[in-house]
Amino acid sequence: MKTVKDYIRTIPNFPHDGIMFRDVTTLFADPRGFRMAIDQLLHPYADQQIDKVIGLEARGFILGGAIAHQLTVGFVPIRKKGKLPGQTISQDYKLEYGEAVMEIHDDALKAGERVLVVDDLLATGGTAEAGIKLIEKLGAEIVGCAFVIDLPDLGGRALLEKLGINVHALCAFDGE
Amino acid sequence: MKTVKDYIRTIPNFPHDGIMFRDVTTLFADPRGFRMAIDQLLHPYADQQIDKVIGLEARGFILGGAIAHQLTVGFVPIRKKGKLPGQTISQDYKLEYGEAVMEIHDDALKAGERVLVVDDLLATGGTAEAGIKLIEKLGAEIVGCAFVIDLPDLGGRALLEKLGINVHALCAFDGE
Repeated sequence: MKTVKDYIRTIPNFPHDGIMFRDVTTLFADPRGFRMAIDQLLHPYADQQIDKVIGLEARGFILGGAIAHQLTVGFVPIRKKGKLPGQTISQDYKLEYGEAVMEIHDDALKAGERVLVVDDLLATGGTAEAGIKLIEKLGAEIVGCAFVIDLPDLGGRALLEKLGINVHALCAFDGE
Repeated sequence: MKTVKDYIRTIPNFPHDGIMFRDVTTLFADPRGFRMAIDQLLHPYADQQIDKVIGLEARGFILGGAIAHQLTVGFVPIRKKGKLPGQTISQDYKLEYGEAVMEIHDDALKAGERVLVVDDLLATGGTAEAGIKLIEKLGAEIVGCAFVIDLPDLGGRALLEKLGINVHALCAFDGE
């Protein structure tokens, strides 16, 4: 039986030379693969209360939309700077070269709401860490951060776990 | 009873002066609103075979992920230039000022597959038209294009219907 990892395609040298890009579009395009991914992302949280699902732009929107619908809860996006139309709070984070900024609407979460954060990939953890800070600034509680892929060599899981965050990933690629 | 339209927030002067931006994040953040939107987007297609759901970047990803999951079919993204890692085909389209390019993986759809296209907003129809051309280049068949919001004054519905596309929108904002 195919696993989630079996549906993921590797594209060498994207977005630049030397990077082995793990492409989840082949997973999402397969009815069995997509359903398996959504089900498995939710497994650890089956007995937990989740009030909202947070998706990180942009592939996290695909997963987050499906998971929010599955749970019959609301969906909240965390987006790159300048994309959200209402009043936002923002958080810088480091990229390989330079910095970027993530934003959330300042009225998107209520204090005490329990949220699940989802994205396709955990690499250095920079984007997820920015998202976590935004959610915590609004006073919401993070039940967990769920990813399809973990790249443990890049240290994201260690970073998030040091912040006390529950991290769940469906598969890992290390020096393969 | 609140309708889908009642959950949509209007933000004046975003992204620039004179634009009344229709903000669906308040719809998506509400469990009842989000579920209602997904259900209503699917109503006209209940008796149709749909093989894949196509989401247009980026808010179409949230809706498309949920709808693909609801139907237990695969999800395929149409993205802005340079975001998809594999071999793509691309299509120019006009913006208010200048041009932009949308892309799809060239192996994302098989000839004859029946697809539903989803996005949050139908305005001039430029992005949707680019998406339609990409899907048709791959030989797939468009069952319909489903939107949360139609802005009929901007002519998108008329444009798509002239191309023979079934257009479904949950609500409209005209000169309000």
